[in-house]
Amino acid sequence: MIKKKKDIRREFIIGEAAKLFKQKGYGGTSMRDLAEQVGLDAASMYHYIKSKDEILQGICFDIANTYVSQLTEIENATQSYSQKLKALVRLHIHLMTTKGPEVSVANNEWKSLSADALTEFKSLRSQYEKRLAALIEAGAEAGEFQQVNTSVALFTLLSAIRWVELWWKPDRGIATEELENSILTILFQGLERK
Amino acid sequence: MIKKKKDIRREFIIGEAAKLFKQKGYGGTSMRDLAEQVGLDAASMYHYIKSKDEILQGICFDIANTYVSQLTEIENATQSYSQKLKALVRLHIHLMTTKGPEVSVANNEWKSLSADALTEFKSLRSQYEKRLAALIEAGAEAGEFQQVNTSVALFTLLSAIRWVELWWKPDRGIATEELENSILTILFQGLERK
Repeated sequence: MIKKKKDIRREFIIGEAAKLFKQKGYGGTSMRDLAEQVGLDAASMYHYIKSKDEILQGICFDIANTYVSQLTEIENATQSYSQKLKALVRLHIHLMTTKGPEVSVANNEWKSLSADALTEFKSLRSQYEKRLAALIEAGAEAGEFQQVNTSVALFTLLSAIRWVELWWKPDRGIATEELENSILTILFQGLERK
Repeated sequence: MIKKKKDIRREFIIGEAAKLFKQKGYGGTSMRDLAEQVGLDAASMYHYIKSKDEILQGICFDIANTYVSQLTEIENATQSYSQKLKALVRLHIHLMTTKGPEVSVANNEWKSLSADALTEFKSLRSQYEKRLAALIEAGAEAGEFQQVNTSVALFTLLSAIRWVELWWKPDRGIATEELENSILTILFQGLERK
């Protein structure tokens, strides 16, 4: 399906907004800053985007829905729990190296969502964490994972990769594959050599 | 050595300030809020503490100096690299469970330090990261650690434990020893069971 010109322009504006929100914070970015960044006057921009709030919702739910649909696909795949969890961690890292500013905004600025959106976002996140915890628990019961506290494993895995969004840039001198492999090795094989 | 009454009161005020900064942010906390929290009028509080900036410096450098002196002690100990790094990660977790608000402020509010203090803090942090990276590299060269990218290992370890400061409370139903052991198992043995 060919995207409409209006949608393409809209997506471009949202992408630029994500960069600005990451750099200056959601609160520190005005619609005027955004119009300047995308090279439109305010009136023309309002043709594509009505408010900062609409943009923030777009970014946060796009990222949240990507995470949820990836998880659903992995849950339904015929794989060991270990393969599932590794694939998922790889997808998390991949999203950070391909959509860094958007992930950053969804991680750090979601508290600024308007009331209804905030409730829905928190619920999506909490469901996601529960399903991920269930996957870890099932893997431990199947004897594939170490017997560690499930919440600790969940938050350690999620937290262990969060720096990527802040640090990784194409010119860091490390390919995304090496980045993913190094992280997967530490989290699943352990840093200590046997 | 017995602490002076004035020092004890001062430490109490700084501890309460850390809780407020964590809860409401450094920018969102006034000296008036703090005076109210510690049950002093503003004039009496100024006898112990002159400014918010002084408090923030106190908290950030107390945490930074604790990290640095722990690292120095570990560097000088007669242990394998693996034992050193594990001991260090354990100390990081321990600091978060015993001085949660202070660690949180040092992690999240250091950008508000005044110019000279900011420069010194960043330099301390960067030196710390370099020494920690050197320890990881030496351990890899000695064959104790997996051959992974050193920066990735450094940031994965530091990031993997940062959630503790946000999540852990004495009533979470997990003892600090189990918390530490679970995290150490994941990071050094790997989540996957061999």
